[in-house]
Amino acid sequence: MESHSPVADPGHVVKSSPVMIDGVALNGPTLDVSAAEGFIQQSMAIIMEDAVRKATNVREKVCEWRSPEQLKELLDLELKDGGEAQSKILQRCRDAIRYSVKTSRNQNSKFIQYIRVRDKGKTAIHSFSKLYTYEVAPVFTLMEEAVLKKMMEFLGWEEGGDGIFNPGGSVSNMYAMNVARFHHCPDIKELGLSAVPRLVMFTSQECHYSISKAAAFLGIGTKNVYVVPSDKRGKMIPAALEEQIKKAKNEGAEPFMVNATAGTTVLGAFDPIEEIADICEKYNLWLHVDACWGGAALLSKKHRHLLKGIHRANSVAWNPHKMLMACLQCCAFMVRDKTGLLQRCHSARASYLFQQDKFYDVSYDTGDKSIQCSRKPDAFKFWLMWKALGTSELERRVDRAFAMARYLAQEIKKREGFRLLMEPEYANVCFWYIPPSLRNMPEITLMYPSSLQVGPAVKERMMKKGSMMVSYQPHGDKVNFFRMIIISPQASREDMDFVLDEIDRLGQDL
Amino acid sequence: MESHSPVADPGHVVKSSPVMIDGVALNGPTLDVSAAEGFIQQSMAIIMEDAVRKATNVREKVCEWRSPEQLKELLDLELKDGGEAQSKILQRCRDAIRYSVKTSRNQNSKFIQYIRVRDKGKTAIHSFSKLYTYEVAPVFTLMEEAVLKKMMEFLGWEEGGDGIFNPGGSVSNMYAMNVARFHHCPDIKELGLSAVPRLVMFTSQECHYSISKAAAFLGIGTKNVYVVPSDKRGKMIPAALEEQIKKAKNEGAEPFMVNATAGTTVLGAFDPIEEIADICEKYNLWLHVDACWGGAALLSKKHRHLLKGIHRANSVAWNPHKMLMACLQCCAFMVRDKTGLLQRCHSARASYLFQQDKFYDVSYDTGDKSIQCSRKPDAFKFWLMWKALGTSELERRVDRAFAMARYLAQEIKKREGFRLLMEPEYANVCFWYIPPSLRNMPEITLMYPSSLQVGPAVKERMMKKGSMMVSYQPHGDKVNFFRMIIISPQASREDMDFVLDEIDRLGQDL
Repeated sequence: MESHSPVADPGHVVKSSPVMIDGVALNGPTLDVSAAEGFIQQSMAIIMEDAVRKATNVREKVCEWRSPEQLKELLDLELKDGGEAQSKILQRCRDAIRYSVKTSRNQNSKFIQYIRVRDKGKTAIHSFSKLYTYEVAPVFTLMEEAVLKKMMEFLGWEEGGDGIFNPGGSVSNMYAMNVARFHHCPDIKELGLSAVPRLVMFTSQECHYSISKAAAFLGIGTKNVYVVPSDKRGKMIPAALEEQIKKAKNEGAEPFMVNATAGTTVLGAFDPIEEIADICEKYNLWLHVDACWGGAALLSKKHRHLLKGIHRANSVAWNPHKMLMACLQCCAFMVRDKTGLLQRCHSARASYLFQQDKFYDVSYDTGDKSIQCSRKPDAFKFWLMWKALGTSELERRVDRAFAMARYLAQEIKKREGFRLLMEPEYANVCFWYIPPSLRNMPEITLMYPSSLQVGPAVKERMMKKGSMMVSYQPHGDKVNFFRMIIISPQASREDMDFVLDEIDRLGQDL
Repeated sequence: MESHSPVADPGHVVKSSPVMIDGVALNGPTLDVSAAEGFIQQSMAIIMEDAVRKATNVREKVCEWRSPEQLKELLDLELKDGGEAQSKILQRCRDAIRYSVKTSRNQNSKFIQYIRVRDKGKTAIHSFSKLYTYEVAPVFTLMEEAVLKKMMEFLGWEEGGDGIFNPGGSVSNMYAMNVARFHHCPDIKELGLSAVPRLVMFTSQECHYSISKAAAFLGIGTKNVYVVPSDKRGKMIPAALEEQIKKAKNEGAEPFMVNATAGTTVLGAFDPIEEIADICEKYNLWLHVDACWGGAALLSKKHRHLLKGIHRANSVAWNPHKMLMACLQCCAFMVRDKTGLLQRCHSARASYLFQQDKFYDVSYDTGDKSIQCSRKPDAFKFWLMWKALGTSELERRVDRAFAMARYLAQEIKKREGFRLLMEPEYANVCFWYIPPSLRNMPEITLMYPSSLQVGPAVKERMMKKGSMMVSYQPHGDKVNFFRMIIISPQASREDMDFVLDEIDRLGQDL
């Protein structure tokens, strides 16, 4: 295959002129790849020895039982500013295995846990346990609690709150809707929606499509999601929200919730949370913030102002598997309530799991807060990553992604044939490519069918060539444009240059 | 730690007298552990080389694009009766990587996919891609289709159907409820439940607690789940179902769905699907079969009669992560409909993902069937496992689990101080332990508070000793009893003996 990139092989720093944006140097990748490979090899060796060989040896204990209080001390769960050395992280892997129940990772294995773990191809450390009660996942239960506590600190919830990791931002938004309506009218859990007046919620036209899916799924109905106009920047217009609330009330409907988006999917816009919170207080509405994508900005002292007011939210969805790059799936749903609302809303009190006559504090059995039964211990990978990197490195990564987006926007503005949709507020950079044949047409060109076909054509060519994948989409009255989202700490300014060069190469003759 | 088990170390076959049940030999574990370890080492090496090193080298292609038709031929997706050699399976891992998009596994990475994969601790083969459109996960999209097709063959759906993998049996049951009500009244998607009469569904008293959770979550209301009595064996009584349906109609409610359970959680009972299907046809109700736990019996020619009539179900939930031991999470929801009902019910048509002007057949973009956005490629691990073992080995494992449960039940009946709750129909074996101090009491003893405490006390001791974990629960009018569920192909009759010996040792002085 021909060399289609000006970027050097991974591991080699490119000797081009350094570029600084917002005080961040953007040349070359930032990770030491060989160290990362070493870590993977060593952690695999630990998993094989401790979680497979030892755990399948019936002479070893099924679990080293510790009470929640004892285990919290042993595990040193707190997440700090500084990161830890690789040797320390490997020891944490050993400890996580040591105090976890050795199961054959299977749904029903808690009944046969002294039977062996071994089976073909099952290796990942987070595969050998799952969450619903403390006794089946003592380590991961406490780690989930620790991670949620830390995330809630960044939300500014000084009194704490409650929360649960779940399989996706879409599901988090469903949780929010269900908790909000249960809070509005607890009878709905038993009686259903056919027994109550029409409930209505509000969200901006730029929100994620999961809001609409959730309204359908939860029986609320997509037409009872009132869509609030956004400004040109993509932010919800607070005055328009208030109008919609009044409209719904005049219709005799019952407003119960507002969804504000922090980091919209396409434009990366942040709704003005503070002003929306004022309106929610005025009308006594639940405020949910879908910060699945934008929550990461809270880690940056420079950029967290984008989410000003989030401490007033009743619930927040935030996916560490997005900008913070915890592995898919890693999604937190959090509520500010501390009275057990999450549990009351979702509990079904299955007597075969949540026995009340157990010998430990059953408030650590988190399963009945969830709509799932077995849950994967998604919080573990984020906890371990945070221990390894520390808050300061996570912040540095977020700042770098912001700076990289600004660099790309600058380059787009400099180049002939590229047009920026708008200045990026977050890590989304939206732009059109205009091939030479269309460059001398009037501005209205961007609305022409011919320019509509540029995106699909360039995309097809890049995929068949295999050089990169950059997505396009239409949006509102805008025809197909490209959208780059920058998150990887390995992305460099050379990569940004390559994206633009390559689009230009692929689209020259269109 | 003392040696508490008569079983030899893993890898050594115990030389005790062979025990045969139903033609299955139950001594010793059945897997070659060293071969499994070798496979893990070799597959890790492939992942490091092909999915990490090569994929992070910008000189390599982001993807080797193939159309769905081409890729189907290249991958040889069909699942067969015989298993394949380890070398073949390793080649299949290489191929899966080769034709997958090389992403940094991150939600937004499709926009920066030519940027590097490398990051600390991210190793699993199924972590590097996720499903919503064919272009981001061509290999896994086709594998999911192939696995669903094969599973539907076992359901006896000769015309095929539709389906989706999702994060748990609880979520599968939610899908069923949503599709059933959409089928009953498509307007609900837009208008919500407040616009329609009270919908009512039916399930047995022995069903999984997720049915109740789902009814609350979907806005149907837990009181609109009408509970049908079960017989002593734990099976729904069809005549009682019909009575409940008539009752609901008399109340002016609208019945829309019946949930039959194939393999109940506690007793392992199978509802009589054929008779329930007759009633569903008579009253025009959607028949969903929750076969999350019991679906595996379909693979056994000897035992599949337990699910007789499942070919008449409108939808089925089946979790390969249970008895078939695919890693958590691996859960299929399937509908017999072939008109696109699943997609119409859940679609939100996000224009940034599901562009209709793509250059390939967009019917392969499965994302809009789902309530999630990014989905993990859970079908892959089951597909690979099926290729490695073949249908015949999966069947052998299921038959062995049945036989092992029967052996354990026999032993319980032979031993003083143990009492079987009922003969096992599936792999659940429920029994009481009666310590010496209570053995001479009259039969009514099992209702006494003192015997109520036996389960918790023995459980606490086994956990603190670390010798095993066997769960207990109360159930209906039955006080706490133990429940063993046998699934692992490594479980042997020596392990069953150990469970009983150990409970007796731990409970002697109670």
